[in-house]
Amino acid sequence: MPKQAIRTAVKVDLNTPAWEQPQLHNRWHPDIPFSCKVQPGEVVNVECLDWTGGQIGNNDSADDIKHCDLSRIHYLSGPIEVEGAEPGDVLVVEIQDVQPFAEQPWGYCAIFDKNNGGGFLDSHFPNAAKAIWDFEGIFCSSRHIPGVRFPGLIHPGIMGCMPSQELLDTWNEREKELVGYHASIGTDRVVANLPLEKFTHAGSADSDSAAKVAKEGARTIPPREHGGNCDIKNLSRGSKSYLPVYVKGAGLSIGDLHFSQGDGEISFCGAIEMAGIITIKCDIIKNGVKDMCMKNPMYIPGPVEPHYGPSRYLTFEGLSVDETGKQHYLDVNVAYKQTCLQFIEYFKKFGYSGEQLYILLSCAPVQGHIAAIVDIPNACTTLGVPVDIFEFECLPKEGGFDKIIASDCALTSGK
Amino acid sequence: MPKQAIRTAVKVDLNTPAWEQPQLHNRWHPDIPFSCKVQPGEVVNVECLDWTGGQIGNNDSADDIKHCDLSRIHYLSGPIEVEGAEPGDVLVVEIQDVQPFAEQPWGYCAIFDKNNGGGFLDSHFPNAAKAIWDFEGIFCSSRHIPGVRFPGLIHPGIMGCMPSQELLDTWNEREKELVGYHASIGTDRVVANLPLEKFTHAGSADSDSAAKVAKEGARTIPPREHGGNCDIKNLSRGSKSYLPVYVKGAGLSIGDLHFSQGDGEISFCGAIEMAGIITIKCDIIKNGVKDMCMKNPMYIPGPVEPHYGPSRYLTFEGLSVDETGKQHYLDVNVAYKQTCLQFIEYFKKFGYSGEQLYILLSCAPVQGHIAAIVDIPNACTTLGVPVDIFEFECLPKEGGFDKIIASDCALTSGK
Amino acid sequence: MPKQAIRTAVKVDLNTPAWEQPQLHNRWHPDIPFSCKVQPGEVVNVECLDWTGGQIGNNDSADDIKHCDLSRIHYLSGPIEVEGAEPGDVLVVEIQDVQPFAEQPWGYCAIFDKNNGGGFLDSHFPNAAKAIWDFEGIFCSSRHIPGVRFPGLIHPGIMGCMPSQELLDTWNEREKELVGYHASIGTDRVVANLPLEKFTHAGSADSDSAAKVAKEGARTIPPREHGGNCDIKNLSRGSKSYLPVYVKGAGLSIGDLHFSQGDGEISFCGAIEMAGIITIKCDIIKNGVKDMCMKNPMYIPGPVEPHYGPSRYLTFEGLSVDETGKQHYLDVNVAYKQTCLQFIEYFKKFGYSGEQLYILLSCAPVQGHIAAIVDIPNACTTLGVPVDIFEFECLPKEGGFDKIIASDCALTSGK
Amino acid sequence: MPKQAIRTAVKVDLNTPAWEQPQLHNRWHPDIPFSCKVQPGEVVNVECLDWTGGQIGNNDSADDIKHCDLSRIHYLSGPIEVEGAEPGDVLVVEIQDVQPFAEQPWGYCAIFDKNNGGGFLDSHFPNAAKAIWDFEGIFCSSRHIPGVRFPGLIHPGIMGCMPSQELLDTWNEREKELVGYHASIGTDRVVANLPLEKFTHAGSADSDSAAKVAKEGARTIPPREHGGNCDIKNLSRGSKSYLPVYVKGAGLSIGDLHFSQGDGEISFCGAIEMAGIITIKCDIIKNGVKDMCMKNPMYIPGPVEPHYGPSRYLTFEGLSVDETGKQHYLDVNVAYKQTCLQFIEYFKKFGYSGEQLYILLSCAPVQGHIAAIVDIPNACTTLGVPVDIFEFECLPKEGGFDKIIASDCALTSGK
Repeated sequence: MPKQAIRTAVKVDLNTPAWEQPQLHNRWHPDIPFSCKVQPGEVVNVECLDWTGGQIGNNDSADDIKHCDLSRIHYLSGPIEVEGAEPGDVLVVEIQDVQPFAEQPWGYCAIFDKNNGGGFLDSHFPNAAKAIWDFEGIFCSSRHIPGVRFPGLIHPGIMGCMPSQELLDTWNEREKELVGYHASIGTDRVVANLPLEKFTHAGSADSDSAAKVAKEGARTIPPREHGGNCDIKNLSRGSKSYLPVYVKGAGLSIGDLHFSQGDGEISFCGAIEMAGIITIKCDIIKNGVKDMCMKNPMYIPGPVEPHYGPSRYLTFEGLSVDETGKQHYLDVNVAYKQTCLQFIEYFKKFGYSGEQLYILLSCAPVQGHIAAIVDIPNACTTLGVPVDIFEFECLPKEGGFDKIIASDCALTSGK
Repeated sequence: MPKQAIRTAVKVDLNTPAWEQPQLHNRWHPDIPFSCKVQPGEVVNVECLDWTGGQIGNNDSADDIKHCDLSRIHYLSGPIEVEGAEPGDVLVVEIQDVQPFAEQPWGYCAIFDKNNGGGFLDSHFPNAAKAIWDFEGIFCSSRHIPGVRFPGLIHPGIMGCMPSQELLDTWNEREKELVGYHASIGTDRVVANLPLEKFTHAGSADSDSAAKVAKEGARTIPPREHGGNCDIKNLSRGSKSYLPVYVKGAGLSIGDLHFSQGDGEISFCGAIEMAGIITIKCDIIKNGVKDMCMKNPMYIPGPVEPHYGPSRYLTFEGLSVDETGKQHYLDVNVAYKQTCLQFIEYFKKFGYSGEQLYILLSCAPVQGHIAAIVDIPNACTTLGVPVDIFEFECLPKEGGFDKIIASDCALTSGK
Repeated sequence: MPKQAIRTAVKVDLNTPAWEQPQLHNRWHPDIPFSCKVQPGEVVNVECLDWTGGQIGNNDSADDIKHCDLSRIHYLSGPIEVEGAEPGDVLVVEIQDVQPFAEQPWGYCAIFDKNNGGGFLDSHFPNAAKAIWDFEGIFCSSRHIPGVRFPGLIHPGIMGCMPSQELLDTWNEREKELVGYHASIGTDRVVANLPLEKFTHAGSADSDSAAKVAKEGARTIPPREHGGNCDIKNLSRGSKSYLPVYVKGAGLSIGDLHFSQGDGEISFCGAIEMAGIITIKCDIIKNGVKDMCMKNPMYIPGPVEPHYGPSRYLTFEGLSVDETGKQHYLDVNVAYKQTCLQFIEYFKKFGYSGEQLYILLSCAPVQGHIAAIVDIPNACTTLGVPVDIFEFECLPKEGGFDKIIASDCALTSGK
Repeated sequence: MPKQAIRTAVKVDLNTPAWEQPQLHNRWHPDIPFSCKVQPGEVVNVECLDWTGGQIGNNDSADDIKHCDLSRIHYLSGPIEVEGAEPGDVLVVEIQDVQPFAEQPWGYCAIFDKNNGGGFLDSHFPNAAKAIWDFEGIFCSSRHIPGVRFPGLIHPGIMGCMPSQELLDTWNEREKELVGYHASIGTDRVVANLPLEKFTHAGSADSDSAAKVAKEGARTIPPREHGGNCDIKNLSRGSKSYLPVYVKGAGLSIGDLHFSQGDGEISFCGAIEMAGIITIKCDIIKNGVKDMCMKNPMYIPGPVEPHYGPSRYLTFEGLSVDETGKQHYLDVNVAYKQTCLQFIEYFKKFGYSGEQLYILLSCAPVQGHIAAIVDIPNACTTLGVPVDIFEFECLPKEGGFDKIIASDCALTSGK
């Protein structure tokens, strides 16, 4: 039978507020109604808004980032009912393509203000900043970070099935406990976002269900057992994800498309965020959760990742001794932070600002590895940066480097 | 001028106790005398014992692992004086080859007892266990872990220049402080190994120097600013490392050769440990430390790493929710532990014991990535396992897997 | 300045006969008027019909292939004027993306009848046959060749600048001479297609020009100095081609899009032929032809080619001893034919027909190498087939293989 | 059982004339006695002289190349009896490692005189020339071709089982016929080397056998059905070759080790020729020849080939129009020659001599592909050169290139 054009299972409208589109939602809850239905083996397109539902503009100011409302996010497309999927099954999602919308060939990567989202290096870079990235087919470049250009490793930041009520309760409980503990010791950071009624979007739920979702619905920031906001850069074209199913029909939701991201997504809004279209095919492995002892998702990367030879990675190392010289015990977070800072210090020599490099490191396809985690007291992490993303020669050499970059990324108006 | 056979700058004797060989040492201290001298640009061979100096045998018992004396290790070859190197310079070490000794074509990977060294998963696997790996050219396989075979990503676990007295003092201070802190809160783990006179081997130092080295010399377990025991699997053939120089002549020491290792080296003795020969060439970048803002080493991997297509990696995910279901705040260590456990549970279905898999995961060329580190409260890590190391089909499939492995690794005699 | 959607420089209509669309043409001649104009550095979309202008249908008969009119092809989009390009310059064409039309997610690969086009193995497979390939994002599969599925290495078969009159004359002369020589020795093959007035499509040329084009215009089958029908599989996403410029404005034409092709394109209609959209950016290197001693085009492949590890290629060898056992002198054509036949014989064991394998070998991303060309009297060629395109295990093993394929490709109605 | 050092099945002596070593031979004939015996699954070392048996020196003159006696070559190690191998079986040879001798860390690549061996471009480069390559672990560089350095793709040029008498007769017949035909039409080239008694080395054969071998033994220059001098650059570390067996015991012979070679080995002595040690393991697939329809060998490349990203290959194209402008019909040989000449012309701009580039192209790991072989009348071939072998920037750019190389390779004393 001749092949037809691919069906679009979820359509979005870039010019309508996200919260008015019933095929979207921004909480995880089993009572959010399915927005559409697909068959196992069927190939469909799923359109997605960017994670903020359009709050960020293609302009030269980071004010929209500074004031971005994080209680609204993430706007996800779905939940998609997969015919025949039942709790205990594994949903196999093959990502067959991801594309930005033709009419919106750009994305953004940003540093959130320390008091509104923050990020991995927010003690070093507390203020909002932004870079707009223009897409040219598989490539992207930014007027805010000159001297670099690279092919995207395009992927969805979020993909996951709806939790059962039981799993949802577990999530809420353990996160509440974490928040409670940190409150008890006086931590000044937000350590988790508990359910929040304000700006809850429960898709096409009726008012009773919507109220329940608003009250109990898990926020979309963290990845959890079902996948969710894993932000794994390699879930790109051709990858195959294995996701646990918790409710009849699976209830797959997808969103937060990224044109590119580095390991860690360190600036929080650290990918090149975009709206676009993802093409998927779902299959079911009956009873897969038990047969594969699956607690968290698994995946197989796709065959068309951008690839550089191994010798084209300049790799930085870092240890669990922090900026003040204090020794931590096998702490990978401290080590990775030091590794990131090494990258930033090195490339500042070319004239980049710290903010430009923090953004670049977040969204370029860098490889962040846990190199050694047992050599007490130091964990060792590495950060491999493909030198071919730079349009100039950047390898170590005698005599140091010339400053060749003289501009900055988009900053807030107060700066 | 016709090329001569490569000079061996450091020779070892496999049949003499390590502590009787003056060209070896097992502490970091600027007063350990140079054991030889090389010119910039000169290619030399450096022979190395295995990290324990021969304490572990090619047999089917893990008793030697259980009783391994960790105050003796690591026996390093050097320090090598590099003509012209001065503090503030960067020493560029190109690794041109690494080979096991022809007469000793085997290595071992082991789980240390929880009370003698331990490891990343020692709460799950508290007892010593061992696997012997046989080398066939670039490949290795183990009678203790049937069903797998893979090419080595051969590399030195340790490479670094001698610290200055000032740097050494910093190390000792900060590690002492860590130990003190943990003692004050009653931690029951060994969190760092402070200087220990027992079994100190100060190379060819005279007795006064040797006493000073014994008293102050930094232990060799952790990686530090100079490199040291980084255990980075990709410092393999053809790689180029950039190491800070702290003393006149650099004082480069190398050891702890590995036939293969996975990211994290999680079982502590987690690489395939071996004795062998490393071929290096040293060059100097004058004032490189300042010109490149170098705090920790950097490197460029070599061009002949074993490579698989991206779609040949089965990748596991893990989050910072621990085995008990407790939520941790963005803790990469917890997440990576969960990721490792997912691998182990999955492959147990084929009949492997947990110990076999713990060892395999430590030494096979697995890729451990920090996927996302900002999505509060969950960090997300991934662990990519090349499926081509298995001699059977291991990808997810409907109906589960057959148990095909029926043996175990080498255990202790009491087991 | 915010980025706009990409401009479509050449639009085609899938429902209008190709010869009625003035922005297309099917001969090379400097008098074919430019169909549009682009600026250096501008990114544009160029839409293309399939090479036959829609003669082949998505059905289960090869009759359309058997009767395909080869005097009509290839319908190319252009010529595109590039502002500022002059003879002697080099036109740099970056291919930023290639996509099938969303409404036509399929292509075809075919064997042409020996008396109408033929192919590399037409003495073995003289009859027309066809396989329809369905696209699912980056992947393709065929109901006519079960058991295989692979990601496309999508590219244009044809890309080139308009020849000057002088170059055109050279082409016509040398090809005429070849035809004359072969006629004189009584060769029974068509060895070249000389200019043919019938079905010439001269774009928007007025009648005088159109007559000249019809009389002199070079046919589009062969690649020539300007590029043209090179059918190089690696001119895919992200590649950069360097093309000599012969006329003011360059006159770049593009067409013959392929979803995938193997080295050699051996069945003649040997790629997965499709209509679609190519996104390009043109730049100019002034006087590049002389500065780079360029006689034929050069290119740099793109970074997102599908990649498999080297060990995932089953590789066949062939020599310049033909099927009858006759020894030829260093003849690569003979050797490559033997190599192809080896592939076909091997995979027939799984139940495929020869025609299915001939088609598969033409369009799958196989690597055809000239291994040795100096060891008299045998040339040696190799053909590497990625085993991961097969959905079953196909590596050599004791005991031979089971027949698992029981269907055939689309044949002609007389068969 | 603890693993022993690997047994050396064939030992050579670098200081004894090759023809005095009975474990070597230089003809293919079933009557050459086995030189040793191995078991299936056994790992052994096989030592090899360089192909000429030591005729070429590490010096700066090409006189030894000019006068090299080609009736002496190739000196092969073997034949090795493989226990249990019988005609019709397939011998699986895993190459586990290849290494130069430690005491001879160099090799050579040369252009043979047009009247003594010649080469693919001998009409352009008729005179002998030579480059010595020094090995530094996995890397090589040459004092005769400055500005380049690359990792070897080390492999044996020759590997094959002894022919049966019947197969040998076939070879001799068909080659004799070729020679006869060319004599009849007055070709002035040597098109094949028929059996030659002079300098035949029949291993340890007694005088009767030796006489038979001298009379009938097939010369070693060409690859044939059994493999032989395939000169396939990818038969490197970790590769697995499938070779047809024709005589009881197989009679595997190996030699002509190469540190590196490009596709085509175009200058004839076109690899970096060396003496060294190859480590192999043989297995047997019973009746494999029939089960796999094997006519010529097959292989699977190894996993540790040097690898560059696809975008690091500068790729030249060529067509079957020769240097004089004459059109040939789909002639891949003509096309590949043009492709090679394009490479040479391009790189001459940097100051290299044609001879230097001819040698470099022969031995560097270039990729020679048959791109299109059906687009009458032009075949199209491509030649991909990894730019990372050059120590300077060599990609196309506006303004042309500076001459930076000022020396030449080793020439003959008359030059």
